[in-house]
Amino acid sequence: MAKKVILDLDTGIDDALAIFYCLGSPELELIGITGTYGNVQVAQGVRNALAILALCGRDDVPVFLGEPHALSKKSFEVMEISEFIHGKNGIGNVGIPDAERQPESMGAVDFIIESAHTYQKDLLYIPTGPQTNMATALRKDPSIKDRIGRMILMGGALTVPGNVQPWAEANINQDPEAANETFRSGLPATMIGLDVTLQTLLTYKETQVWRDLNTPQGAFVADMTDYYIKAYETTAPYLGGCGLHDPLAVGVAADPSLVKCLDINMKVDTEDPVRGRTIGNEMKLNNSDKTMNVAVEVDVPRFLDEFMARITRVAQGS
Amino acid sequence: MAKKVILDLDTGIDDALAIFYCLGSPELELIGITGTYGNVQVAQGVRNALAILALCGRDDVPVFLGEPHALSKKSFEVMEISEFIHGKNGIGNVGIPDAERQPESMGAVDFIIESAHTYQKDLLYIPTGPQTNMATALRKDPSIKDRIGRMILMGGALTVPGNVQPWAEANINQDPEAANETFRSGLPATMIGLDVTLQTLLTYKETQVWRDLNTPQGAFVADMTDYYIKAYETTAPYLGGCGLHDPLAVGVAADPSLVKCLDINMKVDTEDPVRGRTIGNEMKLNNSDKTMNVAVEVDVPRFLDEFMARITRVAQGS
Repeated sequence: MAKKVILDLDTGIDDALAIFYCLGSPELELIGITGTYGNVQVAQGVRNALAILALCGRDDVPVFLGEPHALSKKSFEVMEISEFIHGKNGIGNVGIPDAERQPESMGAVDFIIESAHTYQKDLLYIPTGPQTNMATALRKDPSIKDRIGRMILMGGALTVPGNVQPWAEANINQDPEAANETFRSGLPATMIGLDVTLQTLLTYKETQVWRDLNTPQGAFVADMTDYYIKAYETTAPYLGGCGLHDPLAVGVAADPSLVKCLDINMKVDTEDPVRGRTIGNEMKLNNSDKTMNVAVEVDVPRFLDEFMARITRVAQGS
Repeated sequence: MAKKVILDLDTGIDDALAIFYCLGSPELELIGITGTYGNVQVAQGVRNALAILALCGRDDVPVFLGEPHALSKKSFEVMEISEFIHGKNGIGNVGIPDAERQPESMGAVDFIIESAHTYQKDLLYIPTGPQTNMATALRKDPSIKDRIGRMILMGGALTVPGNVQPWAEANINQDPEAANETFRSGLPATMIGLDVTLQTLLTYKETQVWRDLNTPQGAFVADMTDYYIKAYETTAPYLGGCGLHDPLAVGVAADPSLVKCLDINMKVDTEDPVRGRTIGNEMKLNNSDKTMNVAVEVDVPRFLDEFMARITRVAQGS
């Protein structure tokens, strides 16, 4: 039976690829998308999620508005670097029509809690932005930490430097308090961080495959991803491609054997000067009960094969 | 055939235990001890190494004075925390007689270079303090990076916080430039950091075994180590014992299967605010040639068994 999946997205370019990956994965049943802020404002991310679902003929998947800013803040502004990487509209400035529907009236936090009670261990929660929605849900109903099957998050960096600071990765850095709460909560969680996502690279060669499909969906992912690859040529030219951050989290949800993990109870530093760093919790180092693990190796060729097969399946539009 | 071993020590308490461990290991032939600064001044560390070798009847092992301070500094002062943990004399304020001999007239750096040429891949170099001696040797003769079998260093922290700063471990923090040079040099190296050494704990129960031997060597290691355990009760009460940092590096030299490692090319941050941090080198993340690995798991019961058997063998004094 397919796992029930909630994608918690700040729909940006790699978030959009994560939607395609999830829709193309028979092991996963997308029961809803919860919106967060980060690559874009929460409202823009939700707009993008709805538009992408419409483009893929999946208006049956509900979309929920989530928290608009970090726990410790009163507002959110998109960072300049985010706009550079994802474009002003979040999806590489590629124009696709607005969906005909609106987000649900229920909020993201309540949907997460309700789903935890409904689906219990069959539920996989996949956040690819800040951890604010889950931290808020855990504050409202701490029992969900023992109900949800697993959180598979894109975020953090354990064995490599961060990408917004030498010690901090962008998603965690948006709301270190929220991530510290979810990491320490006991919620079973797998961290898919820069350690592995910077090893999974895409180039123009692959996007051409989608363009050659001659479908609206193929044109969309090809043009959008080219924008992303172009940005990486400036921000990380030594990589030789763009990092497939968010899709890898979905890939691991569909097939955990794609990565090797260290069992380690994590925390997030909330104090300067290393605010936003993800690191092992030294107070639990010798505690045999490990609720988290961290991906440190990835089978790159196999993931890229899966990635291309699944995205292409959806991009074919049939 | 036993591997040729150089111990590079700032002989402190766990350095002293590393000497005992090495002398008690048939797989390892200790060809020399090179002195460095850190837990104590270099001269005091060399004095301690000579005195411990005399106590163990091993005046045949030569001892060499090394660099007295970090590459970027002109002097060295023992940190207050080092004195608290290791005692004013470095070996828990336990009195043992001075050796009757002096260190060799050759310096540590030249001995390292000479040994690299003489023993080539049979040589294991085990530094348990700052990396200043090796960095200086590599500057003087870069060819040794391809000659030495492996450096097995105690230092750094990859998946856990540091111990002198949340981002920095004591040995690396003494001379970040030196460690950055040795890490990036291509010298094959295994990092035995706080990730694993804080998992290998000793308590008063074990030191009593040595005291009960009723030998001068047994009394020395028991009293000295009790001082160390006592200090840990203040500095890290949650651990419930003292970390066996330096002996674990020697343990891995004798038996690499004691730890599981990640293959990863490391670097050391030399800029504030994370000066002294050990982390993967993002520029070499997708480079398949890995010259370093980092221990992230340790077989604690098996190491403690080996540790007790080998220290006790030497402490029996027979």
